[in-house]
Amino acid sequence: MNKLDYFFNPKSIAVIGASRNPTKIGHVVFRNFLEGNFSGKLFPINPKTRELFNTKCYSSVLSVKEKIDLAIITVPAALVAKVLTDCGKKKIHAVIIITAGFKEIGNVKEEEKLKEILKKYKMRCIGVNCLGVYDPYSKVDTFFLPPYKLRRPFEGNISFISQSGALGSVVMDWMATKGYKISKFVSYGNATDVDESDLIEYLGNDEKTKVICAYFEGINKGRKFFEISKKVSKKKPIIALKGGTTEEGTKSVASHTGSLAGSTDVIHAAFKQAGVVLANDLEQIFDFARVLSTQPLPKGNRVQIITDGGGFGVLTTDWVVKNGLKLAKMKKENLDKIKKVSPPYVVLKNPIDLTGDTDTERYRVAIDAAIIDPNVDMIALIVLFQVPQLTTDVVDVISEAVRNSDKPIIIISAGGGYTEVLKKSLEENDVPCFSYPERAVESMRALYEYSKNNNKR
Amino acid sequence: MNKLDYFFNPKSIAVIGASRNPTKIGHVVFRNFLEGNFSGKLFPINPKTRELFNTKCYSSVLSVKEKIDLAIITVPAALVAKVLTDCGKKKIHAVIIITAGFKEIGNVKEEEKLKEILKKYKMRCIGVNCLGVYDPYSKVDTFFLPPYKLRRPFEGNISFISQSGALGSVVMDWMATKGYKISKFVSYGNATDVDESDLIEYLGNDEKTKVICAYFEGINKGRKFFEISKKVSKKKPIIALKGGTTEEGTKSVASHTGSLAGSTDVIHAAFKQAGVVLANDLEQIFDFARVLSTQPLPKGNRVQIITDGGGFGVLTTDWVVKNGLKLAKMKKENLDKIKKVSPPYVVLKNPIDLTGDTDTERYRVAIDAAIIDPNVDMIALIVLFQVPQLTTDVVDVISEAVRNSDKPIIIISAGGGYTEVLKKSLEENDVPCFSYPERAVESMRALYEYSKNNNKR
Repeated sequence: MNKLDYFFNPKSIAVIGASRNPTKIGHVVFRNFLEGNFSGKLFPINPKTRELFNTKCYSSVLSVKEKIDLAIITVPAALVAKVLTDCGKKKIHAVIIITAGFKEIGNVKEEEKLKEILKKYKMRCIGVNCLGVYDPYSKVDTFFLPPYKLRRPFEGNISFISQSGALGSVVMDWMATKGYKISKFVSYGNATDVDESDLIEYLGNDEKTKVICAYFEGINKGRKFFEISKKVSKKKPIIALKGGTTEEGTKSVASHTGSLAGSTDVIHAAFKQAGVVLANDLEQIFDFARVLSTQPLPKGNRVQIITDGGGFGVLTTDWVVKNGLKLAKMKKENLDKIKKVSPPYVVLKNPIDLTGDTDTERYRVAIDAAIIDPNVDMIALIVLFQVPQLTTDVVDVISEAVRNSDKPIIIISAGGGYTEVLKKSLEENDVPCFSYPERAVESMRALYEYSKNNNKR
Repeated sequence: MNKLDYFFNPKSIAVIGASRNPTKIGHVVFRNFLEGNFSGKLFPINPKTRELFNTKCYSSVLSVKEKIDLAIITVPAALVAKVLTDCGKKKIHAVIIITAGFKEIGNVKEEEKLKEILKKYKMRCIGVNCLGVYDPYSKVDTFFLPPYKLRRPFEGNISFISQSGALGSVVMDWMATKGYKISKFVSYGNATDVDESDLIEYLGNDEKTKVICAYFEGINKGRKFFEISKKVSKKKPIIALKGGTTEEGTKSVASHTGSLAGSTDVIHAAFKQAGVVLANDLEQIFDFARVLSTQPLPKGNRVQIITDGGGFGVLTTDWVVKNGLKLAKMKKENLDKIKKVSPPYVVLKNPIDLTGDTDTERYRVAIDAAIIDPNVDMIALIVLFQVPQLTTDVVDVISEAVRNSDKPIIIISAGGGYTEVLKKSLEENDVPCFSYPERAVESMRALYEYSKNNNKR
C-alpha cells in the first residue's frame, strides 16, 4: 500500500489538539469530522480532558489501543516535535501538521528537527503550515473553517493541490459555489515532507482524478518534479499556476511559504517541457480544467466559429488568431446543408453567422455540418439565447451534439438570468460554457497544446 | 436644443410598424412602451388597422395632428424610404430605424437613398440595422426583446454605445444581472447618420453620464472621431473595445456591419492619442468603468498591497509589476502603526500580509496607514473573508475608508456565498470589488493611465 493512501482513505484518525474551545483549530477540525460523514474511527487527543463531545479523549496517541492510520496535529508549534515523536512510536504512517510557525517565519532549525523525526519513524507528512486534505469521497476534511464560511465541493474528477492555504481555501469555496466537482484537495504548506511532486505522482495513479490542478510558489526539487510531471502528463493533464513570476513576486514568496521561487524563465520552460499546461491566472485553471476534463482532444488547430451575433463572431475570430489557432475552411458540400435551411443573408464563412433570427433547427444543421467536416478540428459555438426565434430546445440539440462529437465543442454565451439558467443545463451535461470569447478560445488553445505535446492524436 | 436630445428625451413617439402580431418587431417595441413607464405621448402607425391595444392607430405620421419628437421605424426594408419621407414632411427631428437589410448585405444604394432623405429634411437618425436606444431615466426603450429574455439595467452613470446590436443587447442583459447601472445605451448599427463620434460628443455633455463605454468594429470618420474623443476624454473617461483587431477579424467585420475596420495599429495609436482607454475584452470594459466611475484619480503609480492571504499577495505583486506599476515603499512610522496592533509574524513589507488570523482592527489600522502614507498612490486591498477571526464589520471599515480616501482603493476578494454577500455590500457602497488579482490590477493600470494621459494630477 502506498503510504499516501492513508491521507485520503484512513480507517482511523487521531486529532491531536482536539478541544472544547471553539476558537481552537483542533476544535473545528474535530467537530467537522464529528458532524461530517467520516465512517472510520475517531480518536481525540488532549491530555487536559477525558471526554469530548461524548467521545473518549486520550492523553496521547500512545494511550490508544487500536491502530491509527492518520494523525492530524493542531497543537502549538512548540509542542509539535513531542506529539510527532509519539506518532512515530505508535507507528502511525501518515500525519498532517496544520500548525504554522516554522521555516516560513525563520524557524528553520525547528522544521529540520521535525524532518529528522519523520525520517526516523518513516512517517509521511503533509504540512507544516497547511490546511491539509479534503476528500469528498472518504469525507476526510481537515480544513479548519466551518462550512458556513467555506463551502465544500461535491465528488468529481478534478484534483487541486496548493502550497498556499488561504488561496487553496478560497479556490475550494469558489469551486463549490460554481458547481465544479472535485476528487481530492491538498494544501501542503511548507512541504516539509510530501511535496508537489509526490502529490502529482500519487494523483497520476488515482483513478478518481482526471485532471490535476496546482498552484505553486516554488518547486522543491526541480529534477524530481520534471521527471514525475513528464510521466504523469502523458496520462492526464496537469494544469499549473505559478505565483512569483516576477522578481518582486518572488521576494514576497520568500516571506510567505519560505520556499525559493527560482528563475521564472527556467521554471516556465521546465513546465512546458514536462507537458504541464500553464495557466495565466486563477480563473484560467478552472477554464482549462473544465475543458480538459470533458472534451475529446482535437486532431489539429482549425476552429470553426458558429454564431447568431456578429459582434461575438468578430471578437472570437480575433482571439482565435491571437492564440495561434487557425480558422477552419469548411467544405462547400457541408456549408450547402446550412444554406438549405437558412435565409439568404446568413453568412456561410468563418464565422458562420446564423444571424439574430435563427431558430434551433438552423443551429442543429450548422453544428452537425461542422462536426462532419474533415477541415474542422474544434468548434467555437456562440449562442446568444436572447434572440427572438431561438427556443430553449437548442440546449438539448447542443448537449446531444457534444455527447456524440469526437471533436471538442466549446460554448460562448453571455447574458442575464435567462441565459444563466440555460447555460447551467448545458454545464450539467458536461458542455463547457464561457461568457467571454477570450476565455473560451484560450481554453481551446490549452486543449490543443496538451493534445500536441502529448502526441495523443 | 441639440437634436440628439429627441432620442433620449422625446415628449412624443411614433412607432411606425406597430402591430398586433406578436412576432413583429413593431409589436414588441410598441408593447414595451405601453407596458413601460414612458410618460410622453405614443402614436402607433399602421395603415392596416384603426386601433391597437386600445390606442388610436394612424395610417401615417402625416395623419397625426400633434407634434412628434421621435419616430421609431420597424417596417420592412422596402418600405423604409417611404415612411422616412413622411417623417421628413411631418418635420420629425429624430428617427430610429431598426430595420436591417441595407449596406450590411450589400444594398448600398438603398442606404444612400435614406441618407439623401435624412439630409433633405434635416432629420437625425440612429440605425439602420440597430436596436436603438435604452434610457432608464426617460424610459425610452426601443430594444425589441421582451424583458423576460433581456433584463434592463437601472438608472446610473455609465453609458454604453455599440455598433453591434446582439453584442449590445447581451451586454445590457449582463449589466442588469451584475447590478451595474446605466445612463444611456445606444446600439447604432450601420451608423447611416449618427455615428460613434456624434454619440461620444453628446454623452460628453450629458450630465448623467460619468463614463462612456463603447464597442466599435470600425470608425466612420477618423479625424472627427479623434478630435471629439480628445476633447471629451479630458472631461470624462472613454473606454473602448475594438472588434476586428486581427486581419481575419477585420474580414468578418465586413460581413457584419459592413464598415471598414481599418488598420489595427493605426486605430489603436489614434485611440491612445485621443485619451481613449482601451479594453482588451468585454469584461474589462466594465472592470474599468466601475473603477473609473467610483475612484479618485491617483497621483502616481505606486501600489501598496494589503492582504490576509500570502498567495493572493504574491499573485497581485506579479500583476502590479507586469502592468508597469510600482510597489510602494511605505514610511517606517506608518508601518509601525500596524506593528503595534499585530503579532510579530505579520509581514510589514509590500505586500503587507496581515496573515490568516487577522481581525477587523488590524485591517482598519493598515488601511489608514496606507492612505496617510505619502509614498502610496493606490491601494490593492485583498480581503479573504473566510479567515476565522475576521468579522463582517470589516465591510463598514472598508466602505468608510474608501468614502473618505483621496486615493483609489480596489478590493480583491474571492470565495463562495459568504464572500459574495459581503462583496455585494461593498459594491453597493461604490467600492469596486474583483475576484481575481489580474483584473483588479489591470483596472488600476487603466485608472493610472487615464490620470496620466489627461494631466489631471
